[in-house]
Amino acid sequence: MTRINPYTREEKPLLVVISGPSGVGKDMALVRMQELGYPFYFVVTATTRPQRPGEEDGVDYFFVSKAQFAEMIEHDDLLEYAIVYGDYKGIPKAQVRKALTSGKDVIMRIDVQGAETIRRLVPEAVLIYLSAESEEALVRRLSQRKTEPEDQLKLRIATARQEQKRLELFDYIVINEEDKLDDTCHKIASIITAERCRVHQREINL
Amino acid sequence: MTRINPYTREEKPLLVVISGPSGVGKDMALVRMQELGYPFYFVVTATTRPQRPGEEDGVDYFFVSKAQFAEMIEHDDLLEYAIVYGDYKGIPKAQVRKALTSGKDVIMRIDVQGAETIRRLVPEAVLIYLSAESEEALVRRLSQRKTEPEDQLKLRIATARQEQKRLELFDYIVINEEDKLDDTCHKIASIITAERCRVHQREINL
Repeated sequence: MTRINPYTREEKPLLVVISGPSGVGKDMALVRMQELGYPFYFVVTATTRPQRPGEEDGVDYFFVSKAQFAEMIEHDDLLEYAIVYGDYKGIPKAQVRKALTSGKDVIMRIDVQGAETIRRLVPEAVLIYLSAESEEALVRRLSQRKTEPEDQLKLRIATARQEQKRLELFDYIVINEEDKLDDTCHKIASIITAERCRVHQREINL
Repeated sequence: MTRINPYTREEKPLLVVISGPSGVGKDMALVRMQELGYPFYFVVTATTRPQRPGEEDGVDYFFVSKAQFAEMIEHDDLLEYAIVYGDYKGIPKAQVRKALTSGKDVIMRIDVQGAETIRRLVPEAVLIYLSAESEEALVRRLSQRKTEPEDQLKLRIATARQEQKRLELFDYIVINEEDKLDDTCHKIASIITAERCRVHQREINL
């Protein structure tokens, strides 16, 4: 074990994954953190799903065709990808590497399935599970979103129940309570600050 | 392994130790955190060392005689105690137990020697090492304090050099930079917030 000198120690950038069931508020949390000016690198996910009202290409997601997505898979351009409710979502590798090289902490939002893949590929990633305060609250939020038909809603609720069983895989859990988005952002930022202060730092290899 | 349910999970109170070399600012950091209103239970250390100007009995320390201290040792009333530069310092057990029962996170300041003891007695304690930004900065602060004669100062500097080698024992390191006390307090609070969000929580047994 090399001895750590407190005066010359360098903080290493982190790879942070925000995950959790569909509808829990992963997107809102990350958008709000950007608004609040947190100095992290927010990874933009590539997806084949249709753009929702208010979403901006290249900011919220990279909206790509299935053919373009197939090409990214072909060229091994994705750190991780998955089919989520019939649509592809994936994390472009180049973006993450560039951000880590710049010394910034990298935050990405991934569904629970994808977080499991990241845990395997990059064991030193910091995995945060975002949860609603109760199942009723989660169902309420999913119902309010009204972006998908009734049978998809049922599918998402059932999936959330299964995903919750994977909590053990994660390092941290943050309860994203209704109307307390800033608290959620503050907790995520605290986790990142704390991880940067760890004596035994995580070393990311991509 | 028992499955963790995010909706019924209870946060467990933490035992947090702020340590680091003499002169680094442990006392100032804890006083400032109290001023800032952080909702932690700040443990008051018992000591036989003379009261310094501005210090209040029962707030900064419990100032006790050597005879009283001997009695506390005799009755096994101390979680940890040590002779630090000829004076006794110790943590009253009853205080810590009471605070943990109330659900509050408990913070205590202990020298590096004592932190090692706590690591052994309470492996699940969160140990934070406070460091100056450089050795020159630490020496400057110790010299400015002027509460001890020249030979004691040299002893403290030599001890700090040794203590720094024990950094591996700690969970976190926070650099307490000159004139950035609030940043230090913010980092300590972030560590506590993050630890409360851990999926695999630390269970304190006293």
